[in-house]
Amino acid sequence: MKVLSLDTSNRQLTVAILDDDQILATETTTVHQKHAEYLLPIIDELMTKVDLTPSDLQRVVVADGPGSYTGIRIATATAKTLAYTLGIELVGVSSLQTLALNIKQEGSLVMPIFDARNNNVFSGLYEIKNGVPENVLEDCHTDFDKWLDRIDSKDKTVYAVGTDAPHFEDALKKKFGDKVIFTDSFDSLPQAARLGLYGQTLSPVEDIHAFVPRYLRLTKAEADWKQNHPGEEVTSYVEKVN
Amino acid sequence: MKVLSLDTSNRQLTVAILDDDQILATETTTVHQKHAEYLLPIIDELMTKVDLTPSDLQRVVVADGPGSYTGIRIATATAKTLAYTLGIELVGVSSLQTLALNIKQEGSLVMPIFDARNNNVFSGLYEIKNGVPENVLEDCHTDFDKWLDRIDSKDKTVYAVGTDAPHFEDALKKKFGDKVIFTDSFDSLPQAARLGLYGQTLSPVEDIHAFVPRYLRLTKAEADWKQNHPGEEVTSYVEKVN
Repeated sequence: MKVLSLDTSNRQLTVAILDDDQILATETTTVHQKHAEYLLPIIDELMTKVDLTPSDLQRVVVADGPGSYTGIRIATATAKTLAYTLGIELVGVSSLQTLALNIKQEGSLVMPIFDARNNNVFSGLYEIKNGVPENVLEDCHTDFDKWLDRIDSKDKTVYAVGTDAPHFEDALKKKFGDKVIFTDSFDSLPQAARLGLYGQTLSPVEDIHAFVPRYLRLTKAEADWKQNHPGEEVTSYVEKVN
Repeated sequence: MKVLSLDTSNRQLTVAILDDDQILATETTTVHQKHAEYLLPIIDELMTKVDLTPSDLQRVVVADGPGSYTGIRIATATAKTLAYTLGIELVGVSSLQTLALNIKQEGSLVMPIFDARNNNVFSGLYEIKNGVPENVLEDCHTDFDKWLDRIDSKDKTVYAVGTDAPHFEDALKKKFGDKVIFTDSFDSLPQAARLGLYGQTLSPVEDIHAFVPRYLRLTKAEADWKQNHPGEEVTSYVEKVN
């Protein structure tokens, strides 16, 4: 199966092209956040390098959030558009789980972390089973102290993964002592190649048009509306922001 | 320190640009063996993407063999030329050790393997100490059965690393039983980003001009000469092949 995988959820932009479990090409940059500008040219460059055209693809695997609003919209919009126009399968994987794929240590816990400012994070808890991170505590947007309160590691090793994880080093060491391990700067990056390998084992989404990112928190427009309309609830986002 | 790292020892071509421990950009392809044609354009593309020019670089780290003759000559010639023309530091790392950098499991043994045909391999034995593969048995070109005879794993886990490692699955399982672990297709690829991180911890070579690849076996010309001149020994390669 020829697969294109991509993740632009945060500062990193990572793209890979695979043929079954063979990684044909992959590129990861961490410098710009001009994902809208760079994503398609990078996909095109890599496709050319591996002598494929978009019509050779059979599946697109996208890290669909949480993360930067703009980043996950770019990734999911690009993936949906490719899947729709090419008539191929689409698979979404949590951007936190994508990062957790860097850990292989059987039986250990993995806590991927995206800093969401003011001591808030996007995080989830995973456990490595049969070489793959299985979700133990659902991905969420939460205050970091409250998040740690929810976790009972049962003295297992906890891998804190991501370039933001060191921001929470003190709290993590206080909670887990020497059982917390911080990954090096390579294993802190999401790897589209790992995402593409994992995404081949999953069922594709049934309705490409209904596929939306995992925001896991209100957009600023929604939050502002809620503040201005206490106690009210509307179901249409368009109504809400007006 | 701004670092360019590269490895074209085998089928894979991998390039990375780092700023200290931050990986700015990295690209890995596994499809072509047109390394001479692709290497410089890929370096140039990545440099442009991270808004650097060659004069910003302070060090080049190259995987200097063993591997394909052509591959390691391209990598080392490119690295030497860049280091010389830019007046910057040059570091060489064994291509086998580069592959071993994919393993982090403290205390485990790592056996990177390049298939050299007719049951011959390039291999070496490493042990992960403080997160880094330290050499235990020197890189060599050897018959695989003789190589296994030399190894006493003391029941430690042995990671067989590289896209060629599965060619020797039967012999490895017979020798190490369930203590041998084969890496997935991502961790079987050399990663210039890991090479660049590791290469920053090493001392640069003193004489760039004297720097040569680790061939670890005779070139075909040398082998042919030896066969035609049994018992003779000459010191000049030019004399030898004539």
